[in-house]
Amino acid sequence: MSEARFPIGVFDSGLGGLTVVKELIRQLPCENIVYFGDTARVPYGTKSKEAIVRFSHENARFLLKHKVKMIVVACNSSSSFALESLRKAYKLPIIGVIVPGACKAVGMSRKKVIGVIATSATIHSGQYARTIKNIDKNIKVVNQPCPLFVPLAEEGWYDNVIAQQAAKKYLQPIVQSKADVVILGCTHYPLLRNVIQRAVGPKVFLINSAKEIAQEVKDLLKKMGLLNTQGHRGKCQFFVSDKPQHFKTLAKRFLGCAIKNVHKGSGACMN
Amino acid sequence: MSEARFPIGVFDSGLGGLTVVKELIRQLPCENIVYFGDTARVPYGTKSKEAIVRFSHENARFLLKHKVKMIVVACNSSSSFALESLRKAYKLPIIGVIVPGACKAVGMSRKKVIGVIATSATIHSGQYARTIKNIDKNIKVVNQPCPLFVPLAEEGWYDNVIAQQAAKKYLQPIVQSKADVVILGCTHYPLLRNVIQRAVGPKVFLINSAKEIAQEVKDLLKKMGLLNTQGHRGKCQFFVSDKPQHFKTLAKRFLGCAIKNVHKGSGACMN
Repeated sequence: MSEARFPIGVFDSGLGGLTVVKELIRQLPCENIVYFGDTARVPYGTKSKEAIVRFSHENARFLLKHKVKMIVVACNSSSSFALESLRKAYKLPIIGVIVPGACKAVGMSRKKVIGVIATSATIHSGQYARTIKNIDKNIKVVNQPCPLFVPLAEEGWYDNVIAQQAAKKYLQPIVQSKADVVILGCTHYPLLRNVIQRAVGPKVFLINSAKEIAQEVKDLLKKMGLLNTQGHRGKCQFFVSDKPQHFKTLAKRFLGCAIKNVHKGSGACMN
Repeated sequence: MSEARFPIGVFDSGLGGLTVVKELIRQLPCENIVYFGDTARVPYGTKSKEAIVRFSHENARFLLKHKVKMIVVACNSSSSFALESLRKAYKLPIIGVIVPGACKAVGMSRKKVIGVIATSATIHSGQYARTIKNIDKNIKVVNQPCPLFVPLAEEGWYDNVIAQQAAKKYLQPIVQSKADVVILGCTHYPLLRNVIQRAVGPKVFLINSAKEIAQEVKDLLKKMGLLNTQGHRGKCQFFVSDKPQHFKTLAKRFLGCAIKNVHKGSGACMN
């Protein structure tokens, strides 16, 4: 089988990475995809760098067993802490979620003030701020961890009074900073897009990293001659390290459509 | 050394179990305590029964290495799913968090309607409802999972408008059921006590399981002749499987006082 037919591997700590899969399917409908969600150890956002690096390598090795042609690290915590270490260890192209979103944000900002909202781990890694400053050192970055947003998204409370109040409280420093672009720095956050948009006002541009990552995957596959040109819809396979049924139930929200089968994978500490 | 001088072992998925340690120190100031928080894999509330049982055995084995005379499973998810399996595997007394709180609740309820609030896993295990019905089958149990309460407690948002709105929304079915007793079925929840009390009204009695567990530990140690009568304050040792510094920072909120040293333990999948 030609390498172009090999699947794109995607991993996340849980199911947030499905917002990336959704965009990959939209922009690259012919690609095969293998997804691994480390649901036995979700969330990574509260874990140490050391733990996140170890978990990320285990997840990558799981995907490599499925002969993936590329790995998308659809987890902000892993992208913040483990990307370099993964790239050193494996020979295939590995794309993280930080750089594509950061580049788009720099391109969009007129006022040179960019807000970043994410989990505590992603914010404290400083990876978004560093990446943005590397592109344009004159940009001011306003960071804000939003620990309640993941459980709000998983509760399906996208736009009730609690989500509104939490968004208002978390985003106040960003509004005060007069940022004109805000990066949704966690794969769960696109589900709360409306409530976030209202909290920052209609003139602020929100960056959904998932879209930017899918674009980068497409560009890179093109450049490498690895685009799947089979001409029919690709196949998606989903693996998790725990609770496949729960994943299946919640997946619909993230993916926008139901999935048939979720397998229990042997990544992570399930070995 | 006499067995009475051996420490009480306490484990939890993270730091919520410190509310139990706080009560143990209050009621049994002479006891030595060894605490293990599985912070590398917190929370258990979203994991499968199979994963929770496996993690619980690993945690118990870690405590046994410290020659504990008793194990307190200060985690509702572990108590719901793993208690029987742990009791079969090890010979020392093992106390969970479900039974003491359930007994107290049955004793306090006049209207025979008891509300239980906890993580999704604890609620779905049905363990509280079963335990209550076993004591008095005529009692009506109203269950309510509250997934936002743990992140609210960890944010330190005990009584702001977001905590108030979340408490109001989650507790509405319990208020409507006319329950006169509510069990705080998660070790994080005592931190939100005030906002929960206001949501249910002043006449509803809240059960803080931590107090009931400490009482049970005291009774059992007395009966077994294992009370530590050394006459001076006991020593507490804290171990976690990840992020000792973060644990130390948050521990003050749960324990009510600062702790000096937190060690990285080798329980869980750190072996």
